[in-house]
Amino acid sequence: MDERIMYDRMTWPEAKERIPKAKAVIVSLGSVEEHGYHLPLCTDNVLGSTLAAGIAERTNSLLLPVMPFGQVWSTRDFPGSISLSEETMVRVLTDVALSLRHHGARNIIFHSGHMGNQSAMKAAARRLYDRYDMKNVWYFCYTDYVKLSEGIMEAPLWRGSGMHAAEIETSMMLAAAPEFCHMERAVSDYPEGCEEMNYRCMPWTEFTQTGALGDPTVSTAEKGRVYTEKLIEHMSDIINRLLE
Amino acid sequence: MDERIMYDRMTWPEAKERIPKAKAVIVSLGSVEEHGYHLPLCTDNVLGSTLAAGIAERTNSLLLPVMPFGQVWSTRDFPGSISLSEETMVRVLTDVALSLRHHGARNIIFHSGHMGNQSAMKAAARRLYDRYDMKNVWYFCYTDYVKLSEGIMEAPLWRGSGMHAAEIETSMMLAAAPEFCHMERAVSDYPEGCEEMNYRCMPWTEFTQTGALGDPTVSTAEKGRVYTEKLIEHMSDIINRLLE
Amino acid sequence: MDERIMYDRMTWPEAKERIPKAKAVIVSLGSVEEHGYHLPLCTDNVLGSTLAAGIAERTNSLLLPVMPFGQVWSTRDFPGSISLSEETMVRVLTDVALSLRHHGARNIIFHSGHMGNQSAMKAAARRLYDRYDMKNVWYFCYTDYVKLSEGIMEAPLWRGSGMHAAEIETSMMLAAAPEFCHMERAVSDYPEGCEEMNYRCMPWTEFTQTGALGDPTVSTAEKGRVYTEKLIEHMSDIINRLLE
Amino acid sequence: MDERIMYDRMTWPEAKERIPKAKAVIVSLGSVEEHGYHLPLCTDNVLGSTLAAGIAERTNSLLLPVMPFGQVWSTRDFPGSISLSEETMVRVLTDVALSLRHHGARNIIFHSGHMGNQSAMKAAARRLYDRYDMKNVWYFCYTDYVKLSEGIMEAPLWRGSGMHAAEIETSMMLAAAPEFCHMERAVSDYPEGCEEMNYRCMPWTEFTQTGALGDPTVSTAEKGRVYTEKLIEHMSDIINRLLE
Amino acid sequence: MDERIMYDRMTWPEAKERIPKAKAVIVSLGSVEEHGYHLPLCTDNVLGSTLAAGIAERTNSLLLPVMPFGQVWSTRDFPGSISLSEETMVRVLTDVALSLRHHGARNIIFHSGHMGNQSAMKAAARRLYDRYDMKNVWYFCYTDYVKLSEGIMEAPLWRGSGMHAAEIETSMMLAAAPEFCHMERAVSDYPEGCEEMNYRCMPWTEFTQTGALGDPTVSTAEKGRVYTEKLIEHMSDIINRLLE
Amino acid sequence: MDERIMYDRMTWPEAKERIPKAKAVIVSLGSVEEHGYHLPLCTDNVLGSTLAAGIAERTNSLLLPVMPFGQVWSTRDFPGSISLSEETMVRVLTDVALSLRHHGARNIIFHSGHMGNQSAMKAAARRLYDRYDMKNVWYFCYTDYVKLSEGIMEAPLWRGSGMHAAEIETSMMLAAAPEFCHMERAVSDYPEGCEEMNYRCMPWTEFTQTGALGDPTVSTAEKGRVYTEKLIEHMSDIINRLLE
Repeated sequence: MDERIMYDRMTWPEAKERIPKAKAVIVSLGSVEEHGYHLPLCTDNVLGSTLAAGIAERTNSLLLPVMPFGQVWSTRDFPGSISLSEETMVRVLTDVALSLRHHGARNIIFHSGHMGNQSAMKAAARRLYDRYDMKNVWYFCYTDYVKLSEGIMEAPLWRGSGMHAAEIETSMMLAAAPEFCHMERAVSDYPEGCEEMNYRCMPWTEFTQTGALGDPTVSTAEKGRVYTEKLIEHMSDIINRLLE
Repeated sequence: MDERIMYDRMTWPEAKERIPKAKAVIVSLGSVEEHGYHLPLCTDNVLGSTLAAGIAERTNSLLLPVMPFGQVWSTRDFPGSISLSEETMVRVLTDVALSLRHHGARNIIFHSGHMGNQSAMKAAARRLYDRYDMKNVWYFCYTDYVKLSEGIMEAPLWRGSGMHAAEIETSMMLAAAPEFCHMERAVSDYPEGCEEMNYRCMPWTEFTQTGALGDPTVSTAEKGRVYTEKLIEHMSDIINRLLE
Repeated sequence: MDERIMYDRMTWPEAKERIPKAKAVIVSLGSVEEHGYHLPLCTDNVLGSTLAAGIAERTNSLLLPVMPFGQVWSTRDFPGSISLSEETMVRVLTDVALSLRHHGARNIIFHSGHMGNQSAMKAAARRLYDRYDMKNVWYFCYTDYVKLSEGIMEAPLWRGSGMHAAEIETSMMLAAAPEFCHMERAVSDYPEGCEEMNYRCMPWTEFTQTGALGDPTVSTAEKGRVYTEKLIEHMSDIINRLLE
Repeated sequence: MDERIMYDRMTWPEAKERIPKAKAVIVSLGSVEEHGYHLPLCTDNVLGSTLAAGIAERTNSLLLPVMPFGQVWSTRDFPGSISLSEETMVRVLTDVALSLRHHGARNIIFHSGHMGNQSAMKAAARRLYDRYDMKNVWYFCYTDYVKLSEGIMEAPLWRGSGMHAAEIETSMMLAAAPEFCHMERAVSDYPEGCEEMNYRCMPWTEFTQTGALGDPTVSTAEKGRVYTEKLIEHMSDIINRLLE
Repeated sequence: MDERIMYDRMTWPEAKERIPKAKAVIVSLGSVEEHGYHLPLCTDNVLGSTLAAGIAERTNSLLLPVMPFGQVWSTRDFPGSISLSEETMVRVLTDVALSLRHHGARNIIFHSGHMGNQSAMKAAARRLYDRYDMKNVWYFCYTDYVKLSEGIMEAPLWRGSGMHAAEIETSMMLAAAPEFCHMERAVSDYPEGCEEMNYRCMPWTEFTQTGALGDPTVSTAEKGRVYTEKLIEHMSDIINRLLE
Repeated sequence: MDERIMYDRMTWPEAKERIPKAKAVIVSLGSVEEHGYHLPLCTDNVLGSTLAAGIAERTNSLLLPVMPFGQVWSTRDFPGSISLSEETMVRVLTDVALSLRHHGARNIIFHSGHMGNQSAMKAAARRLYDRYDMKNVWYFCYTDYVKLSEGIMEAPLWRGSGMHAAEIETSMMLAAAPEFCHMERAVSDYPEGCEEMNYRCMPWTEFTQTGALGDPTVSTAEKGRVYTEKLIEHMSDIINRLLE
């Protein structure tokens, strides 16, 4: 990774010069959250940082250090998960974005390695739009991840879209931080009987004992490398096409 | 550093077992904030993490990843500084502490590598005490740093207590992350005429051009090593004496 | 429509007896929002009420009068749209739900005839779960509407899922309230160039002049009748299967 | 009723033209609240809508659909009553008024068919005045109803001003929606011993078993017609005299 | 005045013994607000304290020092007026009342010498009732002042109820604090043309130049003495009759 | 004391003329709080008013009546203490300051006779700076009281800085309001074993039974007179030097 993308490695005189020149500043989000028997609580922080760094490199952007706590309503009852409320997340994002505007950032990108932050990212972007007239706030989170997994991943996604601690995430972790993975503990888990989660709030502890939704056992580092690269490229292309 | 202190490297079954056994879980705070011409914006995150890790090792505690954004009211107008409001900080700390209580933490320690977070740490501890009857929340931030610097540091502290980006912090950074320091740009700065900062809110941009308060030019890695070790030991002793 | 489903037609002694016996009380949501050149601002209120009444009849539930204002962020700049903030919506839903619990309702269903209310419904359900331990709060909004439209509707959905003031809604309105429809003004509109709406907040005034997304010109009352009936049946089936 | 007064029957191009031409837009409030043994929970919504429609017709104003939930602190323990907090009501009114200003409304009238909303209407008007400099917000609620009842109504008002579910309201309901009235269940109720309600908060369940305060048994549709007309005329005259 | 009624003259051991024995603790409110050409800004604090002290003496209650700032929306544009928002007032009252409950107060009486605080007193009492189940919170403010003025005062009340800086208040001030009164500057002022103040928010600066509403020129200390005594007796009687 | 410093003794036409001419308006804070066995709950209000009046006289400033309730978190469990939350205090200060700005005050000084208000004063000053761009808000509270006590006071300060209800405060009270002091009940109290109060929130009831921290028995009115005068002179000098 190119050190020069790291926002927080700059001194303030460097920041003064480089922030207004960057295409965007990326506000990186993750979570401390259960990821099954085999992945660590920091999984989303590792993946979020990896993806965001790749995007920063390809888009001439600066990357902030990851905000390590996220909105993990669904998994909060699993030991270890740290759960911020949506209002807390929105305030963090809003305050950070206002500082970046103050320093002349041209665009602000909220990027999350954790799906549960999506609603807070959008709410913060609306608040910034409504109260501060900021129209240069963007949000990305595993954009088009299902479609991009075709041809790379093998196991079916849980309920068509679930990927938590399953093949996709585990493969990416095997590529990014193999030393944190305990593949010998990985088990496949496709819980059933949870149709009602579409229609009411259901913590996942109500229906899964493993905390993984899908099949991590078929994951490989190679799949992870290819997929991660593809995701980075895909999001970078969108950013390079749409942001000015 | 012992990997086993890292809270977020655990899987959730490990968290289930180890959180209730640890003496405390440390919530580590820092900031993205200007630190003069020669130190990077991440200085407080580096120092905060270093100190907190040392404390965790000596007190049988678990360490959360650093919350990288802090309350930097005084320096917010220097390019690069990211400024969270006190209410935002208090909400983050409160939410995190409630999750830790949910998972059985015996004690919760707020530890900051950034002085500006002290008021938020105390306000959060009071909120947790008042609303949730939590009496096991502690806060530490460079405890007794002036006294501990005697015999190690040489330059006078600015106005008797100032240390921002000066000899103390720079020495600690030279010990912890020398590759981030630009000593050739370090300048001594003892701004005068700011008596009124005791009596009204004054952003530091009103009285310093460098953003450093004191003399970083006499800093050395050796001073930093000795001082860092002393600080860790001092705070660990207090914790081992007072927490059950 | 069976008058006996109407919550607000009861006297309080009737309410005392019937609320605890009903399978659910339906909190009906809509909006006052632009619906193209040809449909009135009350479209979502009409459709929401129609669907909710059908569901109430088939599930032995009681129906509250429609909350006529909703979260219409995207269309708020079109003349006539009335825009409530998400926090306002969440407070209304929370207060109403707490009253219903106070009166012994077994289940509470948030049902919206306006898509933009979905995020508020979910946020309110989470708030009720978190603060009041209420696990009997459900939310429905055109559930599976794309799939159910197959074989009935003809025109493609805008960007795969858009239906605002297009064939589906217009057909339903022709069935429910033909006197409010001005079919002679209906025009087809498939605006392009709005890819960025996936990645940042974009009021629809930025890309459509008509305020309709799709083709309302092929709508018929017959399509509307069939589709409305199918939607009601579908949601009623889910409710009868999942709620106790 | 003239359909043309109905705000929500317009399309947005009609709204664009007609809102700025109307003398005012009326934000109509009511409640879902107990009204004794004989009147339905929707009484205030029926009466509020009737009065507001009459006013709109006589003052060249537009009428929004009734906000059906109100502030019913006093009756909230009677089964069926739906109770919004004052802050919730104020937020609804404020959001609606800001949308109306955005669309060019010349005047905004809060009109309530429920007395309990008066404090929220005034608080919202002050908030709009203070934060948004809006001086064209008005509020009306059974203006001078006691004086206007002289010569029409016969039974004494409870404690000199009470009218809840008594002769006045019941007569108006007999005129507006006789099919909702159960006169055979009407009973006269003048509860005593509640002097302290002037000096502390007292839910009405503490002193009345019927939920009606006065004598509904002498009500007639004819009284209701005359009185309703008089009220509408009185408020319309004020509006035509004071608003520009 | 009997010193023993003064809550704040006690030491804490005295407070421990006497608070639970008192019939009530009186939370005294006033304002810093314009009172015409001839009365000082502290008028409501003087009168509020005088009345509250009289009540405390006659009801075996304890009196807190006056909260000197109030809700003065209507007069806030007159130089000198200090205006607290309703939410601020409600928070002060709520916090004070919770402390009093903590110390064992049997009843809490909000007493105001300023009319504009009435809505905040009631809102606070409701908040205490709703959130803390406190049913022993009472509010008084010139109770029945119009009726009690008959036979004592001579000049008509402005618009039937206005008394601001007019005969009543001025007479009471002449009795309580003649050294603060500038009778040579007193002028009679019955502003007209303000009918709309019943229907929209109107700061008084819109219609009066003097800031007095009525005729203070006919005031006398004797009237003030008699009236003050009557008011105290009236409110004390109610309290002695209703509170236990 | 010169009556002319009293803000609230002015009429509004006097306020109009004099507020803009004064060097500052002093917002005076105190508390109702336990002060040991021998001093009354009003101690901070008496001392705060005395000091603030002295400062007003020496600096050509106006003095508001004391806000008698403060933030007394540490002593709130002692009978009689009235505890406002920090947010409540900040709102009061903010509202008062905005009114003063509205009336043309050149400077606003928050002055507290109670140490516990310091954090609220600073938070309010920041809020005024951030939201309203007010840079003329100052705060003072026993400025340099330890240093000024040298040569006057005899007993050691508790833990180096404690003075609550001890020699300093008691001497000042003996000078200002001897009739409120019960010297026969005064006892010396230097509680030990409370090191942890530096690191976590600890109500004082956890470690002192008297509620006094130090030795009030050696207090004298003469010490109080000299010290009070010195404090007033010291703060007035600062104000005259720094404020324009």
